Amino acid sequence: MNSEKLTTVAELGEFGLIDILTNDFEINQKTTIKGVGDDAAVIKGRAGFHTLVSTDLLIEGVHFDLTYTPLKHLGYKAAVVNFSDMAAMNGKPKQIVVGLGISAKYTVEALEELYKGIKMACKLYQVDFVGGDTSSSKAGLFISVTVIGEVEKPQITYRSGAAQGDLICASGDIGAAYIGLLVLEREKRVFKANPNMQPELSGNDYIIQRQLKPEARIDIVDQLREQKILPTSMIDISDGLASEILHLCKNSNTGCMIYEEKLTIDQQTYDVAREFNIVPTVAALNGGEDYELLFTIKQTDYEKIVKIKDVSVIGYMTEPENGKRLITVDNQAIDLKAQGWDGLKEREIDSALNG
Amino acid sequence: MNSEKLTTVAELGEFGLIDILTNDFEINQKTTIKGVGDDAAVIKGRAGFHTLVSTDLLIEGVHFDLTYTPLKHLGYKAAVVNFSDMAAMNGKPKQIVVGLGISAKYTVEALEELYKGIKMACKLYQVDFVGGDTSSSKAGLFISVTVIGEVEKPQITYRSGAAQGDLICASGDIGAAYIGLLVLEREKRVFKANPNMQPELSGNDYIIQRQLKPEARIDIVDQLREQKILPTSMIDISDGLASEILHLCKNSNTGCMIYEEKLTIDQQTYDVAREFNIVPTVAALNGGEDYELLFTIKQTDYEKIVKIKDVSVIGYMTEPENGKRLITVDNQAIDLKAQGWDGLKEREIDSALNG
Repeated sequence: MNSEKLTTVAELGEFGLIDILTNDFEINQKTTIKGVGDDAAVIKGRAGFHTLVSTDLLIEGVHFDLTYTPLKHLGYKAAVVNFSDMAAMNGKPKQIVVGLGISAKYTVEALEELYKGIKMACKLYQVDFVGGDTSSSKAGLFISVTVIGEVEKPQITYRSGAAQGDLICASGDIGAAYIGLLVLEREKRVFKANPNMQPELSGNDYIIQRQLKPEARIDIVDQLREQKILPTSMIDISDGLASEILHLCKNSNTGCMIYEEKLTIDQQTYDVAREFNIVPTVAALNGGEDYELLFTIKQTDYEKIVKIKDVSVIGYMTEPENGKRLITVDNQAIDLKAQGWDGLKEREIDSALNG
Repeated sequence: MNSEKLTTVAELGEFGLIDILTNDFEINQKTTIKGVGDDAAVIKGRAGFHTLVSTDLLIEGVHFDLTYTPLKHLGYKAAVVNFSDMAAMNGKPKQIVVGLGISAKYTVEALEELYKGIKMACKLYQVDFVGGDTSSSKAGLFISVTVIGEVEKPQITYRSGAAQGDLICASGDIGAAYIGLLVLEREKRVFKANPNMQPELSGNDYIIQRQLKPEARIDIVDQLREQKILPTSMIDISDGLASEILHLCKNSNTGCMIYEEKLTIDQQTYDVAREFNIVPTVAALNGGEDYELLFTIKQTDYEKIVKIKDVSVIGYMTEPENGKRLITVDNQAIDLKAQGWDGLKEREIDSALNG
């Protein structure tokens, strides 16, 4: 060590860190089509197809809390969030490999529960489990999932293809997973303070399910094919709508205009957000973990997109000079800002729960 | 929880656990050629090739000790041990994705060191770094590496193709990485007891390098091609020769006969093993982490294999009824037994260092 000032990871943030660490990797293999920088890497595949690869870590105490996460749900979610990355490339998951680091407190029966969830996801999404690595860990549970998928060559969709004027679309509803997390965290704190209290989860089924058992929108990929719509850019909503739209704008070199009134927020999400004194739109913009698809299409595809159930047009791409803006219901223009680093989210939860 | 007895992972061991967790996964995708059970999964690849996928976890305090492991070496090793899995399929690594879980104690500069090692390995082995995931962790450093490789279809080599009479071959020398680990652990304990003592590592350069900076034997794969030798079965030596030969025998349904006098053990390995009162052959059989290749060839390839530098013929495959045996230098037949579960290895190191 010398006397130079060392930099903490928090100072850089996740995306800054990734930039620094990966900026000077060279691409040498002719089979590598796209490296770092999208929802998945793209590799030359079998005739007519690209192969897609994506990896995700789930770490106890950071990404999940076993106080309220059943292991079967955790296994299911670990698989599904990776499947979602394949959908984000307009492709489908085909195989997964799973790395598991387990501390001594986990019994074989507990791990079987975890694997039941992985199996359930694999069965539902028709994905083959093809390998893994299991190891002891000194502290807690680590799950690393790598998914291999494929997409017909002409259908591949990057983050970078949007042009100004393209319509911005989002599947499903957003913000629910985050509000579900707040409910789970609240009930955990109540339980910790008084172990005789039973958690009050009833009436919150939808938002809790969105947090504990998300789905990957492969069905949207199928419907885009059926309607012969090729999105110009796409990403999945893992870190929150605001963060994801900024990715699309940055990679496509566009600005954007999003309309608050067009955002789909479920009634339960809306009501419980209000209980927490959170503006529902803020939960929708910054919440994350909804695993819905955010994509852009050509204006000429408008007539086709309205035929797809469960997709909303929420805005459009603009010139980069116009910035990235949200138009509120009372017609204010607000600059969109990225959130979405684990530590930050933790502070937000604290602040929401402590008033 | 009910009153049934719960099973600890230690009771089952790593391989038993993997069997239980993965036994009832179905294979549904027509692109999946081989799932769990070899050094890598095999997937339909570009014209003329199979795609290979393998994943490994490296966990602080289990697989590495940062007291004596420079981060650059760690990054290099994390990549290379995965490249070795591609060699074990008679193929080559082409792309990697890296998942990183990092606790707050790691600075950006420390992570840059780690990545320098990954980059060095990628450059030397001509592998493209194509993606990853970075996250905070509550305790220590977790590295998950998934490697994608390929092999010309007719060249793919599984663990299962050996027949009785086939010659058993091993590249390089074995046991060195384990003895190197013992030296590093010894010096760590000396240093802990008296921080003013300087570690005595000189004279042990080779074995320490074998532990800290292993290589993947892609050069052997190249030489096998040049000599037009297609191995009948192959595996890399990560858990120790005894454990690996038992895998080949089990998967190929053979027995084996290995000759102690044919095992290649480096002089430094031999001498330092003696210092620790360890029989060098035991280190070679059970040590692990040498990342040499263990493979079988047809007897008719004998004239060709002797042309390959750095490969020894160490025995041959037999009928399964003959068992799996080592013939010692004094002509005793000993049954080979598997070692190689992390916890077990830890106890062995303790016993070696405490006399």
